[in-house]
Amino acid sequence: MKQKNNIPGFSKLSREEKIKLLLTEGIISEEMASVLSSHLHTDTALQSMYEGFSENTLSNFYIPFGLAPNFLINGKLYSVPFAIEESSIVAAAAYAAKFWASHGGFHARVVNNIKVGHVYFNWKGDKESIFKLFEKKKENILNYLQKYTSSMETRGGGIHSLQLLDKSTDLANHWQIKLEFRTADAMGANFINTVLEALSRYWNDMVTKLLDAESFEPIMAILSNYTPNSLVEAYVEVPIKDMEKISGEYSGEEFAERFRRAVDIALVDSYRAVTHNKGIFNGMDGVIIATGNDFRAVEACGHAYASSEGTYSSLSKVTIEKDIFRLTLRVPMSLGVIGGLTSNHPMAKTALKILDNPSAEELMMIIASAGLANNFSAIRSLVTGGIQKGHMKMHLSNILHQLGANEIQREKAKHFFNEREVSHAAVKEFLQSNI
Amino acid sequence: MKQKNNIPGFSKLSREEKIKLLLTEGIISEEMASVLSSHLHTDTALQSMYEGFSENTLSNFYIPFGLAPNFLINGKLYSVPFAIEESSIVAAAAYAAKFWASHGGFHARVVNNIKVGHVYFNWKGDKESIFKLFEKKKENILNYLQKYTSSMETRGGGIHSLQLLDKSTDLANHWQIKLEFRTADAMGANFINTVLEALSRYWNDMVTKLLDAESFEPIMAILSNYTPNSLVEAYVEVPIKDMEKISGEYSGEEFAERFRRAVDIALVDSYRAVTHNKGIFNGMDGVIIATGNDFRAVEACGHAYASSEGTYSSLSKVTIEKDIFRLTLRVPMSLGVIGGLTSNHPMAKTALKILDNPSAEELMMIIASAGLANNFSAIRSLVTGGIQKGHMKMHLSNILHQLGANEIQREKAKHFFNEREVSHAAVKEFLQSNI
Repeated sequence: MKQKNNIPGFSKLSREEKIKLLLTEGIISEEMASVLSSHLHTDTALQSMYEGFSENTLSNFYIPFGLAPNFLINGKLYSVPFAIEESSIVAAAAYAAKFWASHGGFHARVVNNIKVGHVYFNWKGDKESIFKLFEKKKENILNYLQKYTSSMETRGGGIHSLQLLDKSTDLANHWQIKLEFRTADAMGANFINTVLEALSRYWNDMVTKLLDAESFEPIMAILSNYTPNSLVEAYVEVPIKDMEKISGEYSGEEFAERFRRAVDIALVDSYRAVTHNKGIFNGMDGVIIATGNDFRAVEACGHAYASSEGTYSSLSKVTIEKDIFRLTLRVPMSLGVIGGLTSNHPMAKTALKILDNPSAEELMMIIASAGLANNFSAIRSLVTGGIQKGHMKMHLSNILHQLGANEIQREKAKHFFNEREVSHAAVKEFLQSNI
Repeated sequence: MKQKNNIPGFSKLSREEKIKLLLTEGIISEEMASVLSSHLHTDTALQSMYEGFSENTLSNFYIPFGLAPNFLINGKLYSVPFAIEESSIVAAAAYAAKFWASHGGFHARVVNNIKVGHVYFNWKGDKESIFKLFEKKKENILNYLQKYTSSMETRGGGIHSLQLLDKSTDLANHWQIKLEFRTADAMGANFINTVLEALSRYWNDMVTKLLDAESFEPIMAILSNYTPNSLVEAYVEVPIKDMEKISGEYSGEEFAERFRRAVDIALVDSYRAVTHNKGIFNGMDGVIIATGNDFRAVEACGHAYASSEGTYSSLSKVTIEKDIFRLTLRVPMSLGVIGGLTSNHPMAKTALKILDNPSAEELMMIIASAGLANNFSAIRSLVTGGIQKGHMKMHLSNILHQLGANEIQREKAKHFFNEREVSHAAVKEFLQSNI
């Protein structure tokens, strides 16, 4: 439906008033209003909290919350929760988890866990004197920032490093103060931005008073979502002969070689790499969303990392050495298990409890393992029977649901469509002749 | 809580049986089970459909569904729905929409809308003869594929091009058949993969029978999520003097220059570009999720595109010419308005109706405009007062919700924390002394 008139002051209305206005303005119908209303949580206090997470909230968008059990990671069993709307992802995760649980499980480690932020400014003045000022005042700066960092320090985090960078060869007069942080079990965005904005004001005062106000212009201060040193690695490995159980029409050795070939293609071809990595994120994002983390931050960081050597490339790689197949994923990510939604969203809290309340680093390892699991299942399907068979089975199931098929019809349809193409029209036709 | 025992056959259980098993196994508590249960849809048929979208589904993860009205795009007004868990995103979209609605609105166009897929195989034989075979049989191939493409052709889509590519300089014996597709109003993943898998089988038969079975090995067939030719552009422009209303302490000209500087930094610095683009995706993903599309596909494609010139860089850019400020976003994306969740998910269907049931190309333009809107608001905050002020206001609101503050306490707290640092502990303390 169409918005015809400009709507001022929408944000100031209550949810009920917003709905009423949208009806009056013809932007939603009564039927749409009842869909919105049917997706509210029945507990009004809880619903009000959900509304507080964002703005102009009318209802809740449902994403299926599922579980892939049997993830053996570093010797510990996990049931891993996924919030994901795409079919086959949880099934793929569960399939890989099951296979690897009886083959040593996922081996994961956090390589490093350092966050980054910058204060950006223009400087047209003398280079040596600003470097000198920075070095001379470094202690003062850190002392000044204490009031913003002390609470984080008691939790094991804080400022890790502080550098002044002359970036004027990239862009005229462009300078940065680059800070590295540790943020313990928090994602740390608010902490980092608060520190950076305070530093920016302090540095502004310092340079304009002690050095040269004319040559200086502050631009902005902000964390970077690019955290290549907040890096996690996960791998699985198995003698290739043990892959025969899952290698379809191929021998274990042929399967291992085909699998390696598929990953090698993703290492050299960006068209393939994008889809390959998308499959990794299918698994990672499911857990990221379920645990109340910010998938956009992890996506942006991970894909930029995939392009960090000049060509967009695969995040995972395969080695076969002495008849041992190994699939390894290295991916940077920045996330938390306290603060933000993780502490407020009832389903996110439940997801973290299902994971036995992991630390942020433990969660990084679980998420990397989930990504690796999906990568493994996807490539396995691609190099054996193709992916459409499984997808179409799920597609059929969704259409049957949608058309309200009963148990008997569903069974008949599964049989009928085993060798036939699935489409909405075909399923509808089938159901009409099988009432 | 911890998974202690291996759990076989989990997927075969009903939802109720799964919950019971998780309780017995000590993976969830009664309290967690009741959180899961309270998030089910009360309409059991609808809930059953939600469960069918994915696997091992226990409940639904709620994402706030909000609306930013007043988006003027190519002269048409839209109320744009967002499903997003992060605070400030809908507010930022609404802010930008409001400003631009009175300054010409968003101008958007689809540059091209072509999808891509590949059949990958190894070829050790004579290069000339395989090229010859391909050229000679191209018509046969297209005729054979007709049975898979005819239905898409009636909707205006189909195969756009078909090429054999020798990629053996990238990787020994690596060859591809690259297909381009048009998929009309569908995202087209199932269509493309079905065509590619059929082509792969047909090509396999052809080469092994007519050419040289020994030198040939099929590897896989799969769409690419990298679609640089499914590209949309959106821009906003305004005389810089008209920016004074929103330029804070700066003149319109200073503000425009600071804004351009911030975007120029994102063009040359990957650390900044990742966060800059993440802000664009904040807005885009909200609409992508709300309309039942696959955000992982758009993220992977968009970020790879951002790195396509060798360094990861900004997706948006600013020009100032003859005192006209222009902010332009170019971003590839692949999405649909029919098929998949878009036709089944009640909230996605509602979102599409709120958007007046756009075509896929119209939706591309709306999503690019939403991304541009968020980019605009974020950079504006960054180069004027910083982003923490707004974030902290929202952070406070969430904590107050969580601690069950009443209306009077909320008002008092907003006043009290205006100039003070917001933390969970500080708010709790404040509420205890303001009962």
